[in-house]
Amino acid sequence: MKLKTLAIITILSSSLVASSLTDEAKKAGLKPIPNSTTELMKLIDNPNNKITKEKVELGKKLYFDPRLSKSGFISCNSCHNLAEGGDDGISAAIGHKWAVNPHNLNSPTVYNAVFFDSQFWDGRDPDLEKQAQGPIQAAPEMAATKEHVVKTITSMPGYIKEFKTAYGSDVEINFEKITDTIATFERTLVTPSVFDDYLNGNKDAMSITQKEGLKTFIDVGCTTCHTDIALGGSMSAFNITATYKYQDVGDFKGDKNGMIKVPTLRNVTQTAPYFHNGQIWSLKDAIKEMGRIQLGQDIDDKQVASIEEFLKALDGRKADLIMPILPVSTDSTPKPDIN
Amino acid sequence: MKLKTLAIITILSSSLVASSLTDEAKKAGLKPIPNSTTELMKLIDNPNNKITKEKVELGKKLYFDPRLSKSGFISCNSCHNLAEGGDDGISAAIGHKWAVNPHNLNSPTVYNAVFFDSQFWDGRDPDLEKQAQGPIQAAPEMAATKEHVVKTITSMPGYIKEFKTAYGSDVEINFEKITDTIATFERTLVTPSVFDDYLNGNKDAMSITQKEGLKTFIDVGCTTCHTDIALGGSMSAFNITATYKYQDVGDFKGDKNGMIKVPTLRNVTQTAPYFHNGQIWSLKDAIKEMGRIQLGQDIDDKQVASIEEFLKALDGRKADLIMPILPVSTDSTPKPDIN
Repeated sequence: MKLKTLAIITILSSSLVASSLTDEAKKAGLKPIPNSTTELMKLIDNPNNKITKEKVELGKKLYFDPRLSKSGFISCNSCHNLAEGGDDGISAAIGHKWAVNPHNLNSPTVYNAVFFDSQFWDGRDPDLEKQAQGPIQAAPEMAATKEHVVKTITSMPGYIKEFKTAYGSDVEINFEKITDTIATFERTLVTPSVFDDYLNGNKDAMSITQKEGLKTFIDVGCTTCHTDIALGGSMSAFNITATYKYQDVGDFKGDKNGMIKVPTLRNVTQTAPYFHNGQIWSLKDAIKEMGRIQLGQDIDDKQVASIEEFLKALDGRKADLIMPILPVSTDSTPKPDIN
Repeated sequence: MKLKTLAIITILSSSLVASSLTDEAKKAGLKPIPNSTTELMKLIDNPNNKITKEKVELGKKLYFDPRLSKSGFISCNSCHNLAEGGDDGISAAIGHKWAVNPHNLNSPTVYNAVFFDSQFWDGRDPDLEKQAQGPIQAAPEMAATKEHVVKTITSMPGYIKEFKTAYGSDVEINFEKITDTIATFERTLVTPSVFDDYLNGNKDAMSITQKEGLKTFIDVGCTTCHTDIALGGSMSAFNITATYKYQDVGDFKGDKNGMIKVPTLRNVTQTAPYFHNGQIWSLKDAIKEMGRIQLGQDIDDKQVASIEEFLKALDGRKADLIMPILPVSTDSTPKPDIN
């Protein structure tokens, strides 16, 4: 009898705690990736660049195709590696001729980037469609011209056929159409985790230490910036001209207000090194450092460990991705130029 | 009655032609990738490094893992890209710090490399197990030390677990074990084509022009070097010190006899540019050039076109490859060094 009562009390109290914690999380602006495909599609689709199966398949090929770059050696996947955390695991991005990013900026993850308010560390582009145009043309990245990209793609019957299937036989294969298609693929790179399952109603999806970590995460104030679906993705209150221990961003000045974008915390255990300049390798150190700079407080070791436990709950489920087989070059495909 | 007789004669004669052509092909040393999995396994397995499902899965991860390189940017797949022809589509391989291969050597395809008599353009290594040790350590390629590779892999519980599953809990994860595992994965990269179906008995697998092309291929003498299962893969009669229009191989001298390896013709439509120095981009030009240098004859345009038709029959079927999700780095994983 006693045991039964205890069990009922435990269930009640754990259910109370759970419901108040999800309420607290929602109040702090945290939102799950929806369970329902319809709801998810509403969030990730672009009315001006609708997601279709054909565009996703074609976009995947383009994403993996190094021939879009001047050298023929670098693809989107080189720096936003889907086998890793959707990034490259290097402090500052490497590009054409081994150029280091001139601002020493770290390659951000492409996973869940569809949920960001804006793209790039200075938030200069509104969406993935616009973003995809940047690195392809940037001299220290893929170093290609629009002409190179269009000439490359339209030199291959395999690609032309797929563009017609995706957009209709009268499609004009221009640079924007190509980068839009890459963005369509990227929009599908969404990785729901036990955190989403928890917020979506499965109270047992997160472990007790992960739930405690979530509470600490909220209490300490991390959700001030790391909020919404991406737990990040908006321009932050972080002013890089302020004192920053690991300041090393060349002439990078952030946006017009000196702000930089809050990185997503989804899959954060897989995206070291951290910060816009990739100067911190340990997640624990990153948590501590953010407390010091952003929140003006020393987060103690116990809190750090607790927050880290929560962050592990953000490791997402990645859908099986079949490596594309790229269309074959022809005699008219521009030759790679490694110089 | 007349029509029936004609039909019978046609069937008989086409069957005669077919059987004599397959006989001719076999006489010229051409061999199919076997249909039977048991027969295939006999050919691709290594008694000293047996193929198992667990090793293949682990080897695939290692093959795609850029953290094996000094920079953390280059994986086996960077130059032997499985989304392309198993190579990089560049004249001379690019590696660490954008180094160009010091001999201006072209990255050969990894597809069907298991069928080669020896590995590397100078045939210096006997098998894929030994080969896999080279590029990882070569300064102009992945530029890593054995210590870096072992420290990297053993820093990740995800990898340690998989090595134990593949080799038993007492496995010693050393450099050779790691490269052996990569080789195991590579041994499975076999791409049968309609040519194999034809030699294996399906007389209709190749088109008429492809069959005519095969006949031309044999008659002209291409099978002198391009023979056996890989249609290549042995040390050739080609002496690079002989007159060669596109001679540009730095101080590369071939093997001790000045010989270089015959590249496979499987998937050759996907592996431009051609030759050990990647100096010819058009398959037609490559065929013509080989006739001139190797066979001492001008292959006329009609023959070239016919041979090219046959070579298209060597485009292989690639098994669906699910992109691996790599184990997560830890605080003790060596940091990438791009210098």
